[in-house]
Amino acid sequence: MKATAITPAYERLVARFARIAALDEASAMLGWDAASMMPPGGAVARGDQLAVLAGLGHELLIAPAVASDLAAAEQSPDPDPWRAANLRLMRHAHTRAAALPGDLVEAATRANSACEKIWREARRAADYAAVLPAFNEVVRLAREQAHALGAALGLAPYDALMDGHQRGIGAADVVPVFAVYEEFLARALPRAEMVAAGRQAPRRPAGPFPIMVQEALCRCMAERVGLAFDHARLDRSEHPFCGGTPSDVRITTRYDPADGLKSLFAVLHETGHALYERGLPTAFARQPVGAAAGMAVHESQSLIVEMQACRSDAFLGWLGPELARAFGPDPAYEQGNLACLCRRAERGLIRVDADEITYPAHVILRFRLEVALIVGDLEPADLPAAWNEGMKSLLGITPPDDAAGCLQDIHWYDGGFGYFPCYTLGAMAAAQLMVAARRAAPGLDAALAAGDFAPLSGWLAANVHARASLYGFDELLRMATGKPLDPEAFQAHLTERYLS
Amino acid sequence: MKATAITPAYERLVARFARIAALDEASAMLGWDAASMMPPGGAVARGDQLAVLAGLGHELLIAPAVASDLAAAEQSPDPDPWRAANLRLMRHAHTRAAALPGDLVEAATRANSACEKIWREARRAADYAAVLPAFNEVVRLAREQAHALGAALGLAPYDALMDGHQRGIGAADVVPVFAVYEEFLARALPRAEMVAAGRQAPRRPAGPFPIMVQEALCRCMAERVGLAFDHARLDRSEHPFCGGTPSDVRITTRYDPADGLKSLFAVLHETGHALYERGLPTAFARQPVGAAAGMAVHESQSLIVEMQACRSDAFLGWLGPELARAFGPDPAYEQGNLACLCRRAERGLIRVDADEITYPAHVILRFRLEVALIVGDLEPADLPAAWNEGMKSLLGITPPDDAAGCLQDIHWYDGGFGYFPCYTLGAMAAAQLMVAARRAAPGLDAALAAGDFAPLSGWLAANVHARASLYGFDELLRMATGKPLDPEAFQAHLTERYLS
Repeated sequence: MKATAITPAYERLVARFARIAALDEASAMLGWDAASMMPPGGAVARGDQLAVLAGLGHELLIAPAVASDLAAAEQSPDPDPWRAANLRLMRHAHTRAAALPGDLVEAATRANSACEKIWREARRAADYAAVLPAFNEVVRLAREQAHALGAALGLAPYDALMDGHQRGIGAADVVPVFAVYEEFLARALPRAEMVAAGRQAPRRPAGPFPIMVQEALCRCMAERVGLAFDHARLDRSEHPFCGGTPSDVRITTRYDPADGLKSLFAVLHETGHALYERGLPTAFARQPVGAAAGMAVHESQSLIVEMQACRSDAFLGWLGPELARAFGPDPAYEQGNLACLCRRAERGLIRVDADEITYPAHVILRFRLEVALIVGDLEPADLPAAWNEGMKSLLGITPPDDAAGCLQDIHWYDGGFGYFPCYTLGAMAAAQLMVAARRAAPGLDAALAAGDFAPLSGWLAANVHARASLYGFDELLRMATGKPLDPEAFQAHLTERYLS
Repeated sequence: MKATAITPAYERLVARFARIAALDEASAMLGWDAASMMPPGGAVARGDQLAVLAGLGHELLIAPAVASDLAAAEQSPDPDPWRAANLRLMRHAHTRAAALPGDLVEAATRANSACEKIWREARRAADYAAVLPAFNEVVRLAREQAHALGAALGLAPYDALMDGHQRGIGAADVVPVFAVYEEFLARALPRAEMVAAGRQAPRRPAGPFPIMVQEALCRCMAERVGLAFDHARLDRSEHPFCGGTPSDVRITTRYDPADGLKSLFAVLHETGHALYERGLPTAFARQPVGAAAGMAVHESQSLIVEMQACRSDAFLGWLGPELARAFGPDPAYEQGNLACLCRRAERGLIRVDADEITYPAHVILRFRLEVALIVGDLEPADLPAAWNEGMKSLLGITPPDDAAGCLQDIHWYDGGFGYFPCYTLGAMAAAQLMVAARRAAPGLDAALAAGDFAPLSGWLAANVHARASLYGFDELLRMATGKPLDPEAFQAHLTERYLS
């Protein structure tokens, strides 16, 4: 086979996708601004700006020239694996974009936005009935989109939605992994609780925690993990997030004057996301193959920094004196106490407050319910009962009202289905990657104990970040760790951290 | 005549121009971010993002559908003056955009960007020869653009460039006005210097001027002038500016820890710009007729706040005690001393440091030189000599080197021609508007003496801001003041402030 490696059609596609990506970058910046800077009066105009940018990007992606260039480029198989993968991902993006009729997208955008507004009020009032009519419409349109996408991609409807967040993995991969975890949890959680009960309650640092000091500490720790602020910013927002672009990453956190640790661990989490973006290969910047491999992989990068590295004994032993230097000496910063503070095991009702061991239960519940909602096995009217039943079965607790139950997360009410599994797949992948990193860099923990992230971040840069979207989820894990996703490493990690 | 007021063609144009304006808003936000927030590592990607947005906006503006819709809509004269003006301005924007071949725009963008970079170094080294080759290219392409635009618009080449900054006024309007001012200056400046020499040198406030205090003061004063921060932000940048969008205005300043007044007057200036944007009619948001009437009008709005109102005896009498409250008591804040501090009359070489009375001389020099550069009467190689000669003739001083001479401003080296007159036309319009505002609101100065801007800002809102682009420059002044631009009011203002 004598293939012309780079066809003119491929080059036109590269130029077009770079343009689309630049539009997406503009949107990402405006999104960051909306969450961290924008005065309230700018919200309506910002919505319009983002809609116009999204609309133009969509037009560029579904233009007839894309279909003909894809067909032409696909005639000449490219021996370069990066370019070949790039072309496949271009096809995939085009197929996804072309699968949805414009009026369906528009109807869903409107319905999601209307429902999200009603949901805010309904959650405050713990009044599920108030949001039900709007939510019925959201689910109806989500099902319609899932079917259209699934038909175009050759995927089951729910898998087509998951594919939008993490390519290369579907419900059939998730179900057994989550079943294994459910079993593990049934055994492990009571033991973890016993272990915790046998310990003294950890001492809380007394403070004060001036916000300027917290901010300086967060900045300094993000730098220590490896984030350089010549290509990044740290700001404040209601919910911490990582936004911006690979060459200009914007992370945010919030500061609680009564707690000096919450903002720090949020920043460490977002720093993991940020390092991933910073480490993407510039040779394929603004190309599909040069982007992050998906949201489950992204979550693995935040969680390996926050959970695996920064809540390890090694790092906490180094962190304690740093906290004392920042906030003043306090026996609460002694390593053992700090470890207890950073590692709870408690059955709670709220996902975002959950600890490392119970968090997957929250995700399993949502995954099962959203699959049922999308395939039509569950109607929105029956969601509260199904939620409470599932919560009882998984964690043995029952929400006092729907605000602490099925109304707690924004995702569904804003039309977001198929994302939840990414959190737990990411946590599992993080544990698996950490084992491989430790194997490859035996000095990794000693380095963490000296506040040195270079061995970990160097390994992640080479084995995850630099590979961008060259591989799918399981293949990326296999290349980095020797096997596809295996929940064993995560269970071993939890067993060691919570059960001993 | 029984005209159908709103044709489908007009409605399509309205939708298209709203889309273009949303893109421009996105660019404005990214521009603000680049100047006030962006880490240095984001610069290259930001340039690409802005180029893509500009390119898409240009494509939307020159699309064949625009030409046919314009022709169709123009068949049905609209009795509504706003819609009629909107259609004329759409035609004007389309003609401007379509006049320039894409490769010329691209060549100019590249040449300007390259020259601007060389200029930074050349200015630092006071080395005009270093920038001359790049600047020759910039001028060559600017001439080419001026001719193409002029041919399309039926304007002389230089006027076509001015038209891009302020519609409805050209060199023939500016020449006599500037000639009158030059004569006035020759008489007035020596007298103003004598008056100043006859006074005690003003006492400088001792400080300190903590930056947090300056910032709080700037914010509070911007609010007092009328800017509400639910639709605005105040941030920092190397050079103060007003950016953002009408519903989300972003003003910036810089803080000098040794000077508490500079940041404040910069903010008052930018607040004038911001109020104009905030006061544009929302009924025509994102339409050409709903935008500010041009940069000379914009400068009039910043200068009427900064120069006319905030450096008036009335306001300075109120401001002194506020400064003392912010920075601590100091005899320098006594009204007479403060007035002397805020009103110098000095022959200086640098435009941005110039006072109110000599500033127009800097503009007159630049206007004459840039007209000559564009029409071909002056070659870039001869610019330094022409500059120094003009400066000698206007202000009687000679730059020691080109850094203090023809290299001082970025404008030309970045391809910006035709803007300079706006500064002085704005200063003159501001004086003329102030006379009219005082006539309409006799309590205006008493209000300023109580720190109350309502009479002034109310009058500006009704007579300037709300009229947006409904009228051209002279017509707007005529509607607001009873006559077109008349330099007399500005001279009377300077005479009263500096010569008595």
